[in-house]
Amino acid sequence: MSRVYVVGAGGIPVGKLTGKTMRAMAMEACRELFRKIDIVPDLVLVSNMSAEQFTGQNHLGVFFADQLGLTGLPAWRIEAACGSGGVAVHQAYIAIKSGLYDAVLVIGVEKMSEVPVSEATSYLAGASDIEWEISSGVTFAGLNALIARRYMHEHHVSSEDLLQFSLISHRNAVQNPLAMFRKPITIEEALNSKIVADPLRLYDCSPVSDGCATVLIVSEKVRKQHPSTNAMEIIASRVATDTISLQDRKNLCELRASETASRLAFKDAGISWKDIGAFEIHDAFSIMAALSIESLGITRKGEACRLAAEGQLEITADYPINTMGGLKARGHPVGATGVYQVLENYLQLTGQAGKNQVPDINYALAQNIGGSGATISINIGRRA
Amino acid sequence: MSRVYVVGAGGIPVGKLTGKTMRAMAMEACRELFRKIDIVPDLVLVSNMSAEQFTGQNHLGVFFADQLGLTGLPAWRIEAACGSGGVAVHQAYIAIKSGLYDAVLVIGVEKMSEVPVSEATSYLAGASDIEWEISSGVTFAGLNALIARRYMHEHHVSSEDLLQFSLISHRNAVQNPLAMFRKPITIEEALNSKIVADPLRLYDCSPVSDGCATVLIVSEKVRKQHPSTNAMEIIASRVATDTISLQDRKNLCELRASETASRLAFKDAGISWKDIGAFEIHDAFSIMAALSIESLGITRKGEACRLAAEGQLEITADYPINTMGGLKARGHPVGATGVYQVLENYLQLTGQAGKNQVPDINYALAQNIGGSGATISINIGRRA
Repeated sequence: MSRVYVVGAGGIPVGKLTGKTMRAMAMEACRELFRKIDIVPDLVLVSNMSAEQFTGQNHLGVFFADQLGLTGLPAWRIEAACGSGGVAVHQAYIAIKSGLYDAVLVIGVEKMSEVPVSEATSYLAGASDIEWEISSGVTFAGLNALIARRYMHEHHVSSEDLLQFSLISHRNAVQNPLAMFRKPITIEEALNSKIVADPLRLYDCSPVSDGCATVLIVSEKVRKQHPSTNAMEIIASRVATDTISLQDRKNLCELRASETASRLAFKDAGISWKDIGAFEIHDAFSIMAALSIESLGITRKGEACRLAAEGQLEITADYPINTMGGLKARGHPVGATGVYQVLENYLQLTGQAGKNQVPDINYALAQNIGGSGATISINIGRRA
Repeated sequence: MSRVYVVGAGGIPVGKLTGKTMRAMAMEACRELFRKIDIVPDLVLVSNMSAEQFTGQNHLGVFFADQLGLTGLPAWRIEAACGSGGVAVHQAYIAIKSGLYDAVLVIGVEKMSEVPVSEATSYLAGASDIEWEISSGVTFAGLNALIARRYMHEHHVSSEDLLQFSLISHRNAVQNPLAMFRKPITIEEALNSKIVADPLRLYDCSPVSDGCATVLIVSEKVRKQHPSTNAMEIIASRVATDTISLQDRKNLCELRASETASRLAFKDAGISWKDIGAFEIHDAFSIMAALSIESLGITRKGEACRLAAEGQLEITADYPINTMGGLKARGHPVGATGVYQVLENYLQLTGQAGKNQVPDINYALAQNIGGSGATISINIGRRA
């Protein structure tokens, strides 16, 4: 089976991009990607959660392929809620491994900001169980709040402890030109931000965002034809699921899908979490950052906040997380997020992460979550 | 690379299934599939066009995996509008070829009938170009009507000629227990049905439907472990695209994506259209049946209606089409349709097509269309 390489990436700055269409966003991201690289894809995969609701448009594979001048190519969309991006990268990995495709363009895109927030909230609820969870009146933030409350109770953790993850993401976003919030925040600001779903405050939550990120994923053959191109090898790619509803979980405070996917991925890769130089984790809510860190084995359950407080998750420390701002500060255009994460792994492993560069990095990991932990992908990159 | 086999299929009767949820539909279809077979999948792929709009639910991969007791497995959704099903089967084919997966459960599902028709029409429009086509006031049926008008003009074909395809589908649906309309129609009824989008009448159009079809697609290894299981080999699987908008097509009256995908698929399979015993083609509208037949090479452009009139497309003739009723009469639950087609190929090639059985059949083909010809898949099956 062919090895799998990311040989290019391009993204647009995440934000409220009023008046900028999905088409324009994808054109801009792809222009950025293809500015540096001359490889024509043979497959286009689009990751998106809910464009039909946000914009009325679906059939996104051909929609973008056609727009990009790639009319004719096979193209389709992958959906796994907020986890769509990481799954699309996994999908591209499978396509290369199959030998049927040699160069897969993955376009992660979401246009969320031009509908009222109440509508966006209702669309995002589709990631959880409409019949059994949402019908009881809870929102998606509410589900995360339930988890946070339980975690705080079980592990004697405070709001202040959890908000440390948001502080890290904001600090790292300052130097990321693609980040939505390029400013540090203080713990006082965070603690004084309004309650979204008790105990989660505004600063525990990632923002509604528009964004588009792209990566080009190729076979060994294509990689060899373009030896001068900056490359990251994807050495492992796994997806796993858990129950979609919180009510069916054995334990609210663990991400079983992340444990499964990361265990398998580390086995495939032949490395451990200790080898990873940058962890891009899915901090859609601060509580998800804590659970994610623990699910990867970096620390025991209930201990993630301590790592944050001790400074061990900073770019210059042992276990850098969300080196380009994470979902909280880079922004969370849901279907695009997983692709932004892999783009960030790529920048780190090819020495293009600028002032956020992790020194001496050999491996990076992207962990992307759909729903409240229901679908989780792990993609591991190696310096090529 | 492993060969790829369909070793089981299960579907529910298509119809207006008022009060039956997507969950219940999928459970019923999978119960039918797994009643006959004891293989546990390692991947779940869901094909669906627009459940988030029709039902509020997305994140369908884990939604169904969890419901089916397959919690933990990788699972995601494929979307290519009405072409989602055939693309999901292609996706499963890639997954088996990659060597990373051995048994892929494909669930095609759509629940359309519980919203007002005007809403359904607006959701279906998302398959075409919202900005450049739909904004001008045309509906999806309207786009097909434009094609039909042009085709009738160019090839001196009448409404009566085109409606022959609907008559064939209705005749074949009578004996299909999964079909929505199990009754023959006359040309008089068809010609007197109301205009939907001139020149297309109600009987030129497939119905808004609910349905769920499943197939289990496995590797050679798994196939060998279950030698007594009825099997169809997928010997070729291709997807191609065309422009999403009609305005950008060189010729309204040809399906370039179908020509490309079928040419490549026949080449991969090492056979020609003459070897195919059953063509399941995408007669969402009668005009699409005509274009599809021509795109596969069965006849020259403008000649498809003549084949129908001469009886050459009947089950007992040379080129049987839509042997189980096609989209027109089996029904068209959009994201499920392509999976129903492959299920029908499977029934034909394993001798389970009952009174609609094509005798001495060795190969069958499923052609599935997304949008007005924008995404087209071709899957070719062989008796195993």
